Amino acid sequence: MIKVAFQGEPGAFSEAAAFEHFGSDIATVPCETFDDVFAAVEAGMVAVGLVPIENSLGGSIHRNYDLLMRHSLSITAEHYLRVRHCLIGLPGAQLSDVKRVISHPQGLAQTEHWVRAQLPGVQSDPVHDTAGSVRMVRDAGDPALAAIASRRAADVYGMHILAEGIEDDAANYTRFLAIRPEQILPTGDAKTSLVFTVRHQPGSLFKALSVFALRDIDLTKIESRPLAGHAFEYLFYVDIVGSQSSDVVRRALDHLAEYAAMLRVLGSYPRHAPA
Amino acid sequence: MIKVAFQGEPGAFSEAAAFEHFGSDIATVPCETFDDVFAAVEAGMVAVGLVPIENSLGGSIHRNYDLLMRHSLSITAEHYLRVRHCLIGLPGAQLSDVKRVISHPQGLAQTEHWVRAQLPGVQSDPVHDTAGSVRMVRDAGDPALAAIASRRAADVYGMHILAEGIEDDAANYTRFLAIRPEQILPTGDAKTSLVFTVRHQPGSLFKALSVFALRDIDLTKIESRPLAGHAFEYLFYVDIVGSQSSDVVRRALDHLAEYAAMLRVLGSYPRHAPA
Repeated sequence: MIKVAFQGEPGAFSEAAAFEHFGSDIATVPCETFDDVFAAVEAGMVAVGLVPIENSLGGSIHRNYDLLMRHSLSITAEHYLRVRHCLIGLPGAQLSDVKRVISHPQGLAQTEHWVRAQLPGVQSDPVHDTAGSVRMVRDAGDPALAAIASRRAADVYGMHILAEGIEDDAANYTRFLAIRPEQILPTGDAKTSLVFTVRHQPGSLFKALSVFALRDIDLTKIESRPLAGHAFEYLFYVDIVGSQSSDVVRRALDHLAEYAAMLRVLGSYPRHAPA
Repeated sequence: MIKVAFQGEPGAFSEAAAFEHFGSDIATVPCETFDDVFAAVEAGMVAVGLVPIENSLGGSIHRNYDLLMRHSLSITAEHYLRVRHCLIGLPGAQLSDVKRVISHPQGLAQTEHWVRAQLPGVQSDPVHDTAGSVRMVRDAGDPALAAIASRRAADVYGMHILAEGIEDDAANYTRFLAIRPEQILPTGDAKTSLVFTVRHQPGSLFKALSVFALRDIDLTKIESRPLAGHAFEYLFYVDIVGSQSSDVVRRALDHLAEYAAMLRVLGSYPRHAPA
């Protein structure tokens, strides 16, 4: 039974992603911060960590890119979780009982239209996290109070799902990365994630991307990020299709290393398609 | 006196950005949502709107890119605001009085280490927004309660700054865009923002970027974003150096329009350097 570290409380969306990805036969280890997840993997306290790296509505989670850069761990898998929000109340509570809704501000924001249409006039209050809001509903014991969180959070606290799939935008996916101390090079359909910098001059990114274009290697993500403390210098986050176990990818990365001021390959891993 | 719409309450960081950018001789118009800011500009109720588009820690604000795509408004300026958080209490309160801190979760997250070191054991509670947390401190009248917000929020509510510059990461900038119904083409040092899609095949982004590289046009931002409802298709956000008033930029954009499946030029505007 492998141990999987995630950030958040039991019932967090990250924990739901862990079960979806690794199956039910794992032991999940809740951590307070993303730093704690990386530290737990590095110290060998868990076999693997699972952290969110980007959301289709919220964008990239730079904090976790920073942590990937700071630690020598490898990405060994990706997983897209479709974020489905539930309205969760006490067992026996009805939708018509609800007078106040609590959740993480992101949960409130992503269900704002549904709540306004279905529960006109109810009060919405932010709390620290989605799973924690379900615990607060249980502890309050008040049928007028409801939480917005994952189905799993309702299970964890034995609470009742009043409505499911209440997110305003169905195209709400969070991409998670599994991180381990050692690389596991995939051989089938795979992606490789990298971070690099190039000297800042017109055409420098174009030249860097030529190492992939000339080899017909496809890109699935590219993002520039201003480098802290270096105005007008940039990090680039790039995901390419292919594994470091392939000669053509290895040659492209060698070629990029020649040209880039800094290059870090974060890992190769099997490609996951959003459900 | 021009009217400037922003999202949030009086004293929000967006309002602080409006005063920094336009000077003190403006009338700011608070709006509940980003949609309301765009609607106010489109309806001519205000001369200009100012919305955040990316933060150096949090990444791009996709919602505002979506709104730029949905409305026919032009970007006419950019402004980088250095996000400086203050701890704000009642007049006469001391740092040692503080037992509970409230703010938007982002304000709490960005000052977490400072609060833990300087105010060990205090309780942190999330509320809807930073400026609103200062209003709550005023209304509570309790010296044990403090808010984390902008200096401007303390001024708006006549509250006292207990500590300033308490953000953990000094490289905390938010980039704002000014939006107006009509283009104002700049002639000096400028940027142009665009959104485009290309057919998804290896090398297609590389070919698109060649229209800039071959003309020595510099990129200051690039980001791919999966297109909602089209798995494996992408929008690209790109900022280039130069104005549409320049022939070389116009030719590059014409060239890109030939190749891109969709191209939308969001505006040209004077370049602003972070302070």
